Amino acid sequence: MDAYQELSRRFRRLGLLGDTLSVLNWDTAAMMPDGGAAARADQAATLSVLIHEQKTDPRIGALLAAADGQAGLDGWQRANLAEMRRDHLHATAVPADLVERLSKASSACEMAWRAARPANDFAGLLPLLGQVLELTREEAAAKAAALGCSPYDALLDQYEPGGKSSEIDRLFAELGGFLPELTGRVLEHQRTTRAPLPLDGPFDIAAQRALGVRLMTALGFEFEHGRLDVSHHPFCGGTPDDVRITTRFDPQDFTSALMGVLHETGHALYERGLPADWRHQPVGTARGMSLHESQSLLVEMQACRSRAFAAFAAPLARAAFERAGAAWEADNLYRLNTRVEPGLIRVDADEVTYPAHVILRYRLERALLAGDLALADLPGAWRDLMRELLGIAPPDDTDGCLQDIHWPSGAWGYFPTYTLGAMTAAQLFGAARAQQPGLLDDIARGDFGRLLGWLREQVHAKASRYSANEILVQATGTPLKVDAFRRHLEERYLEAA
Amino acid sequence: MDAYQELSRRFRRLGLLGDTLSVLNWDTAAMMPDGGAAARADQAATLSVLIHEQKTDPRIGALLAAADGQAGLDGWQRANLAEMRRDHLHATAVPADLVERLSKASSACEMAWRAARPANDFAGLLPLLGQVLELTREEAAAKAAALGCSPYDALLDQYEPGGKSSEIDRLFAELGGFLPELTGRVLEHQRTTRAPLPLDGPFDIAAQRALGVRLMTALGFEFEHGRLDVSHHPFCGGTPDDVRITTRFDPQDFTSALMGVLHETGHALYERGLPADWRHQPVGTARGMSLHESQSLLVEMQACRSRAFAAFAAPLARAAFERAGAAWEADNLYRLNTRVEPGLIRVDADEVTYPAHVILRYRLERALLAGDLALADLPGAWRDLMRELLGIAPPDDTDGCLQDIHWPSGAWGYFPTYTLGAMTAAQLFGAARAQQPGLLDDIARGDFGRLLGWLREQVHAKASRYSANEILVQATGTPLKVDAFRRHLEERYLEAA
Repeated sequence: MDAYQELSRRFRRLGLLGDTLSVLNWDTAAMMPDGGAAARADQAATLSVLIHEQKTDPRIGALLAAADGQAGLDGWQRANLAEMRRDHLHATAVPADLVERLSKASSACEMAWRAARPANDFAGLLPLLGQVLELTREEAAAKAAALGCSPYDALLDQYEPGGKSSEIDRLFAELGGFLPELTGRVLEHQRTTRAPLPLDGPFDIAAQRALGVRLMTALGFEFEHGRLDVSHHPFCGGTPDDVRITTRFDPQDFTSALMGVLHETGHALYERGLPADWRHQPVGTARGMSLHESQSLLVEMQACRSRAFAAFAAPLARAAFERAGAAWEADNLYRLNTRVEPGLIRVDADEVTYPAHVILRYRLERALLAGDLALADLPGAWRDLMRELLGIAPPDDTDGCLQDIHWPSGAWGYFPTYTLGAMTAAQLFGAARAQQPGLLDDIARGDFGRLLGWLREQVHAKASRYSANEILVQATGTPLKVDAFRRHLEERYLEAA
Repeated sequence: MDAYQELSRRFRRLGLLGDTLSVLNWDTAAMMPDGGAAARADQAATLSVLIHEQKTDPRIGALLAAADGQAGLDGWQRANLAEMRRDHLHATAVPADLVERLSKASSACEMAWRAARPANDFAGLLPLLGQVLELTREEAAAKAAALGCSPYDALLDQYEPGGKSSEIDRLFAELGGFLPELTGRVLEHQRTTRAPLPLDGPFDIAAQRALGVRLMTALGFEFEHGRLDVSHHPFCGGTPDDVRITTRFDPQDFTSALMGVLHETGHALYERGLPADWRHQPVGTARGMSLHESQSLLVEMQACRSRAFAAFAAPLARAAFERAGAAWEADNLYRLNTRVEPGLIRVDADEVTYPAHVILRYRLERALLAGDLALADLPGAWRDLMRELLGIAPPDDTDGCLQDIHWPSGAWGYFPTYTLGAMTAAQLFGAARAQQPGLLDDIARGDFGRLLGWLREQVHAKASRYSANEILVQATGTPLKVDAFRRHLEERYLEAA
């Protein structure tokens, strides 16, 4: 067995242990009774520690060195080695005791956040959140030294391999340059058209689920290789051969759950489309969070909030809920699905105002990590920046700086990937439409075969063989730019009535 | 850290990895889509190999030797060490390559059995089953050498720690001495009483489930720490803090699913009652399969097929299915639940004829393992012995020697624990009634508190601190005997009409 083969064997095991952890996490959110939480935390921690031990085994470092000059490796194998190296660097950069302290602190802080948010108790959360921030800064410094980049970029690299804050700064500055003015024009334009008619509930949960399954199936989700369940926060979990998405149903509003289902279906199709030949190898996994988010947003925002999709889905929705009338016509459903309104909550935001929520968080987390903003001053800074970017301010921290789980749970450097994903989605969908004339006509007929085929070939099948930007260049001809996203917003939201 | 402490730390990790495997296995049976099977097999195999590697780590042998003379350990800790030693002996007795070959052969054979059984194709299964038998004989020989016992007892010890075939021979001979004659008298007695009235379906599945949940709750099952789901074969899985039982519902017959639910609830109560102080330590786990089966059979056969339970359950069943009339009176339900009829299928057998099914399998597996019976001759031997023990013979192998998954899946030495469990259940329930006058009156009122309290104290809380027979002596005053089981059958099935 040569060095590459032994590495491949070791990382296969790591991949399978990671998949097992993923199944445990799905179970925790979708199936586990509350009384199982403590035991589950012990199971997950044991598996995590074991994975970390195996990742930091000095033998892996020696094998990586030996494989460095190994001849006869093809492009996929070399890319696989590069991913192994990245993984090994991240795992070994941080001392085991810091990994453990950070894991415990963020578990405790996440738990405290669940109570602090509804209680509007930022002061109560402050000590634990301060610990998480302090340990994250230690982690960022350690990883920065190992990766040879800035501390923020070292955190970002965990979610967005090779991502650079200098590039994000540039893209976000461009976005910030036109979005406020565009948002104003969109709101003005919206005022000149008649308001969409509301859809009156209640909507039977079984019918909501059946409609979701019908649309998932149309999009290409294979229930032979996946499930749809209910959890408090919608997510896509499981493994590529058994992809499990969740949603939460609201009897008074079916569109929110349904759009969530379509969003998670986009994530699921990416996982399912990863190349089976590279299963359980680092190079065979999804390329990073911005590309992952691009797949969910391409399906939800680009494809399923289009006029074409509304034409396909409207009769299905009428049949599912046994309704009729003007409110249930495709045009009204389309206008409901593309309503723009600045709001306090990121997860409820429309695609025009969503980037402002992300830019706010990106600026604040960089300031907090750099020490330019004291954690105690976060609530005020949040309110000020909300007012500056969106013209509104939260009345409390519940709907302000306490609304997201990310920071309490230790996910710093994650937020920008949402908006990178939205921009990537627009650029990919634009290229798909240009390369495949009539794609929207397909969608209006409920035929997603050409779209999925294109995504499979251009994105999914490439896994981590190339960087996100290389994949984008191969698929669209250019690296990530704001142009396609801007064009998309203008076309959709400033369309002549 | 002294040797005991380090062992305790290592076995805690092994316990948590075992729990993770248990969650995976539950998911496989209850949740996984078919297309996830291959990836799941890889996940489970990876975890199993990892557990085996850690169990056979030479450091454990050294620590066990060091802990041998360690002072200051209390009874629980010494018992814990003894269980660690037993576990280590089993794990190290068999070379890793044999473990792997046996695991692969039994996986392949189990898969082939799923097709061979409905196709009545014993000849087709023969080559794979022959491999499993041959490798099991190697395993038995290796473990016999390590444990210093006979090969059969070495296999038995995996399921029934310290179990001896000489003792089983003695007990089964006693059973065989009176059961055929007793069965004849029971059937004769049954003919002299009027037949129970049938319950006409269909029975709504949601109502069946709700009734099951109602009775589980009455018995003491905590849904805060467990679930009820559906799988092809009912079982009890999960972990002590999150016990998950399954059943399968038949719209035409609710009693079969319901009795299955009550049976699995008995297993679940045992798991849930294991001492939290010893969670994830070998001494904190259930004592073995006969005691486990005693808990399910005590709940199902002793408690829930009693006249007292029928008095409690009849009104609930009438309300659940909105039925009335003579067929739904407690007396009729009781007679339906205690009907005796020799049949071909073990899992459908009543408690009077069940032991004959077990004795048959025990005799045949011993002969096969000893080489006294050629595998090719199994179908004929099965038919002959069925005729001898139960007076009937299967028309084919589907309902004959192909009916059980145990041998194809590598579980040799398991069958006797079913009947040891039935006898143990009778002896424990007899003692519980003698020590707690009015226990059946409690049950008739749906109050299982005293029964569960007694089982918690006498059985569950002891985990593996003592042997099964020591637990039985402490609870009932005597080691395992056939007397209580015989008395139970005579009282219930020869009762004056």
